[in-house]
Amino acid sequence: MAAGRCWNSCLHCFFDYETPKTIVIYSKPVGFIFRLTQFLIIAYVVGYVILVQKGYQETESIISSVSTKVKGYTVTNSSGLGLHVWDVTEYVIPPQGADSFFVLTNMITTTGQRQQACAEVPSPSSICQSDADCTAGHSDVRGNGIQTGVCVDYSESVKTCEVLAWCPHEDDTTVPRPALLESAENFTVLIKNSVRYPKFRFSKRNILSNVTSAYLKGCTYDASHHPHCPIFRLGDMVTHAQEDFGSLAEKGGIIGILIDWSCDLDWPEKYCVPKYSFVRMDNKNPSNNIAPGYNFRFAKYVNNGTETRTLIKGYGIRFDVIVYGTAGKFSLLNTVINLGAALTFLSLVGAVCDWFLVTCTPRKDYYAQQKTSHLDTEESTEAMSMGKTYGTP
Amino acid sequence: MAAGRCWNSCLHCFFDYETPKTIVIYSKPVGFIFRLTQFLIIAYVVGYVILVQKGYQETESIISSVSTKVKGYTVTNSSGLGLHVWDVTEYVIPPQGADSFFVLTNMITTTGQRQQACAEVPSPSSICQSDADCTAGHSDVRGNGIQTGVCVDYSESVKTCEVLAWCPHEDDTTVPRPALLESAENFTVLIKNSVRYPKFRFSKRNILSNVTSAYLKGCTYDASHHPHCPIFRLGDMVTHAQEDFGSLAEKGGIIGILIDWSCDLDWPEKYCVPKYSFVRMDNKNPSNNIAPGYNFRFAKYVNNGTETRTLIKGYGIRFDVIVYGTAGKFSLLNTVINLGAALTFLSLVGAVCDWFLVTCTPRKDYYAQQKTSHLDTEESTEAMSMGKTYGTP
Amino acid sequence: MAAGRCWNSCLHCFFDYETPKTIVIYSKPVGFIFRLTQFLIIAYVVGYVILVQKGYQETESIISSVSTKVKGYTVTNSSGLGLHVWDVTEYVIPPQGADSFFVLTNMITTTGQRQQACAEVPSPSSICQSDADCTAGHSDVRGNGIQTGVCVDYSESVKTCEVLAWCPHEDDTTVPRPALLESAENFTVLIKNSVRYPKFRFSKRNILSNVTSAYLKGCTYDASHHPHCPIFRLGDMVTHAQEDFGSLAEKGGIIGILIDWSCDLDWPEKYCVPKYSFVRMDNKNPSNNIAPGYNFRFAKYVNNGTETRTLIKGYGIRFDVIVYGTAGKFSLLNTVINLGAALTFLSLVGAVCDWFLVTCTPRKDYYAQQKTSHLDTEESTEAMSMGKTYGTP
Repeated sequence: MAAGRCWNSCLHCFFDYETPKTIVIYSKPVGFIFRLTQFLIIAYVVGYVILVQKGYQETESIISSVSTKVKGYTVTNSSGLGLHVWDVTEYVIPPQGADSFFVLTNMITTTGQRQQACAEVPSPSSICQSDADCTAGHSDVRGNGIQTGVCVDYSESVKTCEVLAWCPHEDDTTVPRPALLESAENFTVLIKNSVRYPKFRFSKRNILSNVTSAYLKGCTYDASHHPHCPIFRLGDMVTHAQEDFGSLAEKGGIIGILIDWSCDLDWPEKYCVPKYSFVRMDNKNPSNNIAPGYNFRFAKYVNNGTETRTLIKGYGIRFDVIVYGTAGKFSLLNTVINLGAALTFLSLVGAVCDWFLVTCTPRKDYYAQQKTSHLDTEESTEAMSMGKTYGTP
Repeated sequence: MAAGRCWNSCLHCFFDYETPKTIVIYSKPVGFIFRLTQFLIIAYVVGYVILVQKGYQETESIISSVSTKVKGYTVTNSSGLGLHVWDVTEYVIPPQGADSFFVLTNMITTTGQRQQACAEVPSPSSICQSDADCTAGHSDVRGNGIQTGVCVDYSESVKTCEVLAWCPHEDDTTVPRPALLESAENFTVLIKNSVRYPKFRFSKRNILSNVTSAYLKGCTYDASHHPHCPIFRLGDMVTHAQEDFGSLAEKGGIIGILIDWSCDLDWPEKYCVPKYSFVRMDNKNPSNNIAPGYNFRFAKYVNNGTETRTLIKGYGIRFDVIVYGTAGKFSLLNTVINLGAALTFLSLVGAVCDWFLVTCTPRKDYYAQQKTSHLDTEESTEAMSMGKTYGTP
Repeated sequence: MAAGRCWNSCLHCFFDYETPKTIVIYSKPVGFIFRLTQFLIIAYVVGYVILVQKGYQETESIISSVSTKVKGYTVTNSSGLGLHVWDVTEYVIPPQGADSFFVLTNMITTTGQRQQACAEVPSPSSICQSDADCTAGHSDVRGNGIQTGVCVDYSESVKTCEVLAWCPHEDDTTVPRPALLESAENFTVLIKNSVRYPKFRFSKRNILSNVTSAYLKGCTYDASHHPHCPIFRLGDMVTHAQEDFGSLAEKGGIIGILIDWSCDLDWPEKYCVPKYSFVRMDNKNPSNNIAPGYNFRFAKYVNNGTETRTLIKGYGIRFDVIVYGTAGKFSLLNTVINLGAALTFLSLVGAVCDWFLVTCTPRKDYYAQQKTSHLDTEESTEAMSMGKTYGTP
């Protein structure tokens, strides 16, 4: 019998279903408020969380590989070099076609540099009156070499400390204007980019599958007419970045080629296409800047007895291909989390309506009486009255 | 007395506890539905949100540093170069051992190029009948130089416009087959990769701490037997990427070495190990492609009076080491958010069971009567009947 | 009339408002528990989810562009090179100023290498007694070239297999100590970094707008006094990474320059500033390491009849500028999701208090009776008693 009672209690424990007692009120104002708040919350959930923010998707970052190939020729006729045809091998540094490539557009060439002692370029720290002003072994970070401790004539009027350096010194006070290779504007670059979202087993290339080799041989990127042509004219890219090619070519700069692969992978694969944009990445504001533009020095060495080199300070445009984007795809987890969280707000509807019911309706006292019973441990009379209220509405 | 009443009202305001009145129904079908839906939701929360999706973790992206070092020798015996031994310095470009390195496997060499005028390679746009067909200063993007405006003999039968260019022109119509350095297949590369999850103060290297220097000197990566050896045979990587080394070496290509460091940092650090995979990144489909394979041109300059260079069009395999992964670690915030959201669905259980209770059970009218009272502002008779219903069940 | 009834039923369907019947209990212990759990949950939501974890924000990853420029001179006086002044062009490889740059600090130079046959360096696999021990065409991965199949004298006492290689072989058993360019410690590097959060339309540079050109010309980075000076002394960076410059310069290594741009974009833009940190990225633990330090080989070619080269094994420090960070900004979606999820826990308050009410209070039976009615399909007597209980509390 004890076992039977125990079994019975277990059954109750498992099968008992507890549900709140409710009252149903037919009232147009309350019903209207109820439906309105319900509608607003559901509209928000469906419209904003689901449609706008795609809260039902999980996302993944991109994996990308880029190769680039510049094409174009130009000819220069400068006093130093004479008539010279420039091809890719000479003006693209480094030549490998990586995701960041530099196109040489201007240069200051210092030929015949050799390791020897010569007078430093005049500056407040290098001008001297006698050997006492110079310190052997001292190296000024902003100078050109290591002082020998001797004060020598730089020109007829100025004496400077002698330095051991690659002499003659480079004179970079005047940059050729217009830029030597200003016609680099017409060069084109082919950008091949393949991306991958490993979690979604998705991979794609910026040369779309509906594009033919014949089209690729003739096209040039144009935001409105040829948005999927992977061949870009350098001048166009600089214009898109709202810069002037001429002045950029003179002093150098960094142009970012941004490729946005943000994709909604719940749609067919063909809608996932790259969007290109162009932006200047370096600071062109001269007021709080140091070493504006973009340049670097490199040398060509000549071995003929003593080691001699030609120093080139190359100015140009560095193009950084920056691939970014996140892909989204339906995920049960995210759907549940975002729906669940948003739906929690539906429980607010009851609270709002209850408040409206017992404060703003004409028959509020009646409703309050029907809805709520007051129990009171300390004052049993109230408990009684509650009992009464309830028994005889 | 007013103060006392106010104080009393405040006490009520603070200590009043409102709780719904409930009815408990002992009914096997309803109880079963109730427990079943409860179980399903809890199983989903525990099983999917917690165990599968690790909803209790916060995640962080990886910071990585890679260095590579290729090893291997090969000998070639071509007509141009003669017997030549190739070492790393010659076939790895650039030599620094960065996360993207290029192994030269094939090449077209054009020796003795100098800046001069010569006949353009025949093409629809370069073939001419007389000087009138050529425009001085014109530069065809797909040509080899700047036209001088003169029409000259290219061969006995064909006349083309003369161009100022690095002459003689490169002839890249036939690529050496098989690839010159096909034996690059046997070269090995040591990849050193160290990663860091700054938020979790975690850092690790792909050379695991239980690996000895002796093992490293002899091992080669093998997915099944040596999955943590950081030395990779180039041929093996290409095979893993499901490509044929011979044809890849001929025309060039890009192979991605993906290192996946996705880790669950709630487990001991030793379970966080890199997983390698290999994939071809460039497009090998010839139908909608341009400049297939991977190659770039570079030159070796010789200064002897007039500037002369040797132009090399190098084909080869670029290996991109791509490190990715996200680490997850327990986070109270994420646990609460994901649990909270998932648990919201538990409140659906009540709705489901209530619907079942008042529509599908045999005694549904009785239950509905017990559970719900109807108030009706407009029709007081209904309110009366509700009262009655309630008072005498 | 049927239409009227249908319309009436529709009205009810739309305007009926169902709300649970509740009882209000005035009990200090229960009320206290109720308010306490409510307070704890709200404190958690406000304090942790909102303030600490910024659960109301959405986040985005960074897009970054870096350029670097090293400055400094040093002089060396080695037996091979004689007195030699080093400038940036010579010790920074590659010269472009990318986000990863290498500063040469030590080197082993092998001059006059030519393609010829010579005795292999002695090792267990290269030592031979007769030609039978050598295999023509064999290339040992850890050797220096391709065996010719002949056994020749390496020294008076040792015979090794002859190899076709760049001879003479490099001897890298002793690395110059101290490092040849140990004074690279005093070189400085200017790092220009511009970042972008495209979703938030935010872009900024590490040269802050309140910094003047005059300040930039003289400053050096110092974590406490000049935290926003973009000019770094190499020695300082190595010290910050808790390494010794001398030993690092000797064998080489990789230093990561981490720039953290984590920003709360709900605050004014001026509070979003870069934080620099420095860390050694490669493994300096010699026990489970291979090829410790950082070095690579490169060659300078000389064309004078037969091709001759100077092979340089360069040791040095590679600096990797690693830019990371996530920006957060207010997002309605995230606010709702995180608030919603956290607030779900408020519904637990009722469950906790109900349990306390019917188990731990002195008048628990009375409360249980008032709160809960028992219906029982199988035993109608219980249903009756429930009815009774209810009618007459």
